[in-house]
Amino acid sequence: MRVGLLGGGVIGGGWAARFLLNGFDVQMYDPDPEAPRKVGEVLANARRATTKLVMPALPAEGTLTFLDSPEAAATGADFVQESAPERLELKQQLLRRASTAAGPDIVFASSTSGLLPSLLQQGMTHPERLVVGHPFNPVYLLPLVEICGGSQSSAAAADRAAAVYETVGMHPLRLRKEIDGFVADRLLEALWREALWLVNDGVATASEIDDAIRFGAGLRWSFMGTFLVYRIAGGEAGMRHFMAQFGPTLQWPWTKLMDVPELTDELLDTIVSQSDEQAGAASIRELEVLRDDCLIAVMQGLRTVGYGAGEVLDRYERQLFGRGTPTAVEPDLTAPVRVHECRVPTDWVDYNGHTNDSRYMQLSSEAGDRFLRLIGMDSAYLESGRSFFTVESHVNYVAQTRAGDQLYVTVQLLSHDQKRMRLFTAMRRSDDDALVATAEHMMLHVDTTADRASPADPVILAKLAAIAEYHDRLPAPPQAGRHIGQPSR
Amino acid sequence: MRVGLLGGGVIGGGWAARFLLNGFDVQMYDPDPEAPRKVGEVLANARRATTKLVMPALPAEGTLTFLDSPEAAATGADFVQESAPERLELKQQLLRRASTAAGPDIVFASSTSGLLPSLLQQGMTHPERLVVGHPFNPVYLLPLVEICGGSQSSAAAADRAAAVYETVGMHPLRLRKEIDGFVADRLLEALWREALWLVNDGVATASEIDDAIRFGAGLRWSFMGTFLVYRIAGGEAGMRHFMAQFGPTLQWPWTKLMDVPELTDELLDTIVSQSDEQAGAASIRELEVLRDDCLIAVMQGLRTVGYGAGEVLDRYERQLFGRGTPTAVEPDLTAPVRVHECRVPTDWVDYNGHTNDSRYMQLSSEAGDRFLRLIGMDSAYLESGRSFFTVESHVNYVAQTRAGDQLYVTVQLLSHDQKRMRLFTAMRRSDDDALVATAEHMMLHVDTTADRASPADPVILAKLAAIAEYHDRLPAPPQAGRHIGQPSR
Repeated sequence: MRVGLLGGGVIGGGWAARFLLNGFDVQMYDPDPEAPRKVGEVLANARRATTKLVMPALPAEGTLTFLDSPEAAATGADFVQESAPERLELKQQLLRRASTAAGPDIVFASSTSGLLPSLLQQGMTHPERLVVGHPFNPVYLLPLVEICGGSQSSAAAADRAAAVYETVGMHPLRLRKEIDGFVADRLLEALWREALWLVNDGVATASEIDDAIRFGAGLRWSFMGTFLVYRIAGGEAGMRHFMAQFGPTLQWPWTKLMDVPELTDELLDTIVSQSDEQAGAASIRELEVLRDDCLIAVMQGLRTVGYGAGEVLDRYERQLFGRGTPTAVEPDLTAPVRVHECRVPTDWVDYNGHTNDSRYMQLSSEAGDRFLRLIGMDSAYLESGRSFFTVESHVNYVAQTRAGDQLYVTVQLLSHDQKRMRLFTAMRRSDDDALVATAEHMMLHVDTTADRASPADPVILAKLAAIAEYHDRLPAPPQAGRHIGQPSR
Repeated sequence: MRVGLLGGGVIGGGWAARFLLNGFDVQMYDPDPEAPRKVGEVLANARRATTKLVMPALPAEGTLTFLDSPEAAATGADFVQESAPERLELKQQLLRRASTAAGPDIVFASSTSGLLPSLLQQGMTHPERLVVGHPFNPVYLLPLVEICGGSQSSAAAADRAAAVYETVGMHPLRLRKEIDGFVADRLLEALWREALWLVNDGVATASEIDDAIRFGAGLRWSFMGTFLVYRIAGGEAGMRHFMAQFGPTLQWPWTKLMDVPELTDELLDTIVSQSDEQAGAASIRELEVLRDDCLIAVMQGLRTVGYGAGEVLDRYERQLFGRGTPTAVEPDLTAPVRVHECRVPTDWVDYNGHTNDSRYMQLSSEAGDRFLRLIGMDSAYLESGRSFFTVESHVNYVAQTRAGDQLYVTVQLLSHDQKRMRLFTAMRRSDDDALVATAEHMMLHVDTTADRASPADPVILAKLAAIAEYHDRLPAPPQAGRHIGQPSR
């Protein structure tokens, strides 16, 4: 799959990064001779951030090519995204030229944050395939993309754009009406206008205004919008009650400051100096990394709840897993079974700069879970009041790993009887198959209702027997059966 | 420490919960006969959420008493917080009455979201001690509280209020000017006004507007406000460049929709039905739990970055640690050293409903770290290129624990030489001292520059020797030296 990009600024570079990291080839047109450097910088940020964000391995990175005309960038592309500066004539010209070089069913999307698609599509060859696809900075991390068609746009073009964006882990929001500024930027601008007034009137500084957002409503806005938050605030009495209670305050005098403050030199100076003070000694690059790390932490946090951007991330990761080698339903039993892989997340790393020892236990435990699923322990089995509990574990740490390292885990069945099973896991680096840790677990089959040991289901025992037939022939790993303090073999 | 609360609605109940969970006694006045039930419900939510949010144990919960007059609620209180409905006369009357019953230096704060403190303090005994202390819902989780004095307010009153709020884990934002709606609500209201227009004009539904926030700018707003975000968007050219680029768009036609839409019955019906549709079958209670879980996840996520609300949380936790029993500088060596305690967080629990086995390794590893600090391995030591690495671990799982269980860990030094040390940890439930898991670790002293084993510093060896003098006399734990598959003793 190949994407044509028109424009390689902050937004175009962000698109390039998102597409490349998802394995798409990118052909870009940007007349700025600095574009390759700028895109390279965004890509470096994005590589670091995306690797940190998602657990499964990303597909092999696509190829980035710079071409010298919009026509060349669109030739052979399966999808075209325009991210030129916000000047109508410029965007129209780029889209017009590029559209002559692309097949009639190739969809074009514009990253414009405010220009109407009905205007953008004027003069294009096959104007019906143009929609707005408005992303948010940083494009490689934020899931939102607003899709908005113009008067000539086809529904199929919007469908196609939505499908492409979902493939790269985004959340497309389909707008039902064409409107300047779309939805998100109107909301942002309303808040921004009020913020400028507060600075203008000396009520608060840039930094204080930011604090008023990020320590309060901003925390909620990362997973619920204003409507749902207010519904909850209304309590059992519901939204009508909330509106009755707070509707009148909309007419209070403090809502009347709705004009735009004049951007005098004085106001600009104030904003700039307050912004400088707020940023302190931090460079833009450092601020970008901080922003990305916070976004990653927030989205990964929300993933544990399975809500909002966490749900989008979860869906994306499952998609990435699906694209990788699936765990064989009928595994190869002539060797330890490869059941699990992961990339070391940054929060696994401790003050020594390496993966913390306890995380290998976590990894091994996750691998054990996958082995249990392989032998038939599913949710129905758990609901029937039966499970395997680990009663004893032994870990050997062999080599260090670092954040971002790709690891995989194999499981070997050392022994089993009706109630017990002894598993051995080997954790290896994917690059070179180097052993990094091993673990041995004694697991007990338990009747969870009576809370005592019980024989496993015959179906599970049969699967264990089938595996044992092969694994009994494997050599015992040197780390198995060790006690602490025993000299290494 | 005792707090008087005037009003026990959603906000007053949230204050009650925050103060009680931080060990303050609360005396509350609310004429609503339903107040005890309502406050009880908020408190139940808050208990669950706060326990999940913070790692260290909370202090013993304070006592909640309902009293039948504002005077009674203020009598003997060290701080008074008013959270009555937003009616000026009502608030004035409550503050006036309560102020007659409190000593002259007892500070009063009002939770009003928009009324001016200069008006609220009129008629109070000692009006100089009244400030606004405006919190955000849910009060027991969101750190922001705006502090704003009126024309008669003293700086000391604002200082005192800020100190009280910091004690209960909040971030006080001191406003420099008295203004209707303060800072945060003006920003919220600006966005809300625009959202109402979008619904009114049929551009987007409540749910779509919420998505436009939570999948985009809302994620950023959870840690950086608009000013810093825009500074980053401006790139290396800085804030002046950003303003030059986007300032003109403030004058575009789509910024002119700044009036308040009339809340006709039709618009209200639309909002209510869209809100119902968005909430689906979820009850307010379920939505509250979802909101709280998301807030916890976001704040815990930001804690890993140490920024924004994560920094506030981190400071609060360190404060809670400090309030607990400090680790003795000269520990009692006649028994295994108690080095660590924690409350089982919800995300440690797996599908079996118990703490996942791998978490005991994490807990034991954290205890090992604390033991290392105890024997002198500090950041200077690490920077000198020396550290202890774990090379082998053995865990025995003895009993199940659940989310919220309070655990503590002891460390016993089993043996050591110049380069190696064998530690044994016992993890116990705090309630009944029941053993839940044990772990044994072999640790190797490493020259991290050369990446090979090396003798520990004489200072550390001396500390180990001092501990060994006592610990050598302790009986060997039955789980020490075991290998997997060995019958239990």
